[in-house]
Amino acid sequence: MDIQLINGLPGHLPLDNRGLAYGDGVFETILLKNGRLQFLDQHLNRLLAGVLRLDLAWTATQQSELINDLKKHTDSVQDVHVVKIMLTRKAVGRGYAFNHSEQSVDCIIQIKPYTRPAWVMEGAIVQVATIFASENKSLAGLKHLNRLDSVLARASIPDANVNEVLMQTSKGLLVEGSMSNVFLLNGENWETPNIKDAGVAGIIRAELLTEFSDIKVCDISLSSIEGIKAGFITNSLIGIAPIVSLNGKTLNHHPDIFRFSDRLSLTC
Amino acid sequence: MDIQLINGLPGHLPLDNRGLAYGDGVFETILLKNGRLQFLDQHLNRLLAGVLRLDLAWTATQQSELINDLKKHTDSVQDVHVVKIMLTRKAVGRGYAFNHSEQSVDCIIQIKPYTRPAWVMEGAIVQVATIFASENKSLAGLKHLNRLDSVLARASIPDANVNEVLMQTSKGLLVEGSMSNVFLLNGENWETPNIKDAGVAGIIRAELLTEFSDIKVCDISLSSIEGIKAGFITNSLIGIAPIVSLNGKTLNHHPDIFRFSDRLSLTC
Repeated sequence: MDIQLINGLPGHLPLDNRGLAYGDGVFETILLKNGRLQFLDQHLNRLLAGVLRLDLAWTATQQSELINDLKKHTDSVQDVHVVKIMLTRKAVGRGYAFNHSEQSVDCIIQIKPYTRPAWVMEGAIVQVATIFASENKSLAGLKHLNRLDSVLARASIPDANVNEVLMQTSKGLLVEGSMSNVFLLNGENWETPNIKDAGVAGIIRAELLTEFSDIKVCDISLSSIEGIKAGFITNSLIGIAPIVSLNGKTLNHHPDIFRFSDRLSLTC
Repeated sequence: MDIQLINGLPGHLPLDNRGLAYGDGVFETILLKNGRLQFLDQHLNRLLAGVLRLDLAWTATQQSELINDLKKHTDSVQDVHVVKIMLTRKAVGRGYAFNHSEQSVDCIIQIKPYTRPAWVMEGAIVQVATIFASENKSLAGLKHLNRLDSVLARASIPDANVNEVLMQTSKGLLVEGSMSNVFLLNGENWETPNIKDAGVAGIIRAELLTEFSDIKVCDISLSSIEGIKAGFITNSLIGIAPIVSLNGKTLNHHPDIFRFSDRLSLTC
């Protein structure tokens, strides 16, 4: 199945869409497996958090329609798919300013077949990107449409054997992967970077932090990762993938990683 | 005239456009006046600088077609218009990664009537936004499509009497306005913020720096702007607009501002 809808119907995007012009919107990428949208409530909650932070005029009626559309198009689907939702601001006139009372929201849904890549089970080869993460305290955590840093970070390591690249702040602090959050075993402790200056508050990341209170959120300096013995990356599509190689150094496949994965029922 | 073209023809955007998904592209906003695209060469040069930095597969043929399309649709137009060009990456598959040899570029042209707002002559009321500028050394200077910081910065000061808002870095350094570059008279010296961590390398800014070697590019702390006596903002549409009020304090309309404006032949 390959479906693309705008406001519930097949269609195209007007060229003056503000999602295109400015990245003025938010999105979610959801795994559809066994006819079920995985972690749907969590995704919808994060979408609403984005709506509030961007002051999008998303209505309760639109939210119901979105949920109905998702249900209608995914209910009987057994194959694994990726479901992407984008909400973009629509406003009168040109320029960055928008009139609060004259705005509305376009809702885009894309449903495409998804095959989990082999490296998710085998372990990911990970390298540090040469492009920085974009930093903005006012936007950090949001899954907004300004993702050029991730695009260029991924492109900065053209080696196709590398499965994911890690991004850092200008201060040399680890943020996340281009498409994932990252967890590293530092001595005896599992740690994941804080995302107060940059990065996305991932759904799997949040689930892990809720389930395992011993995972620490903290500053992780890029210079400290040489001593790391194990690690994994997470996102809503791959779930949890162990890191087998970090900047050329082999990492162990630590048993905790299975434990984390099992608790969240992420195994395929 | 109100024209919207994609790759030279009227049309819409496919929903899987990467400009929409990630802001994976660059743009220019050009003033069309007396049938002439103002500073066209400079805009095209900056567009190409963006193409190179983003590694877009923009061809010489496409560049010629763009110039022909611009010529065709603007040559006989006497009324003032704004001409926006967007180049977005088109690539096979989903996700941030793109295959260098399997990408192409969609070119969008929008031509709309433009009326220079009255405050450009009268002077701009300017306030500091409560939203930070997005910082990324790898993207700074580019006119890319990741502009959510400008959108939210403008929205952070809802007072419609305020004509422009100023954005700062997390270190409290002034960057630019949401839609303009900014120049301030500090004692006897005209200064404009460096844009090495954030901000857009504006065309009028570059022209001024070329024409007037005594304008200094430097770090400007937000805390220092209380002592400022005069200032102005610039962009390709407004040209140069004096600041008459900065965070509630009245500024002088300094004679240098006329001199700058005259030299660039920016007066309407």
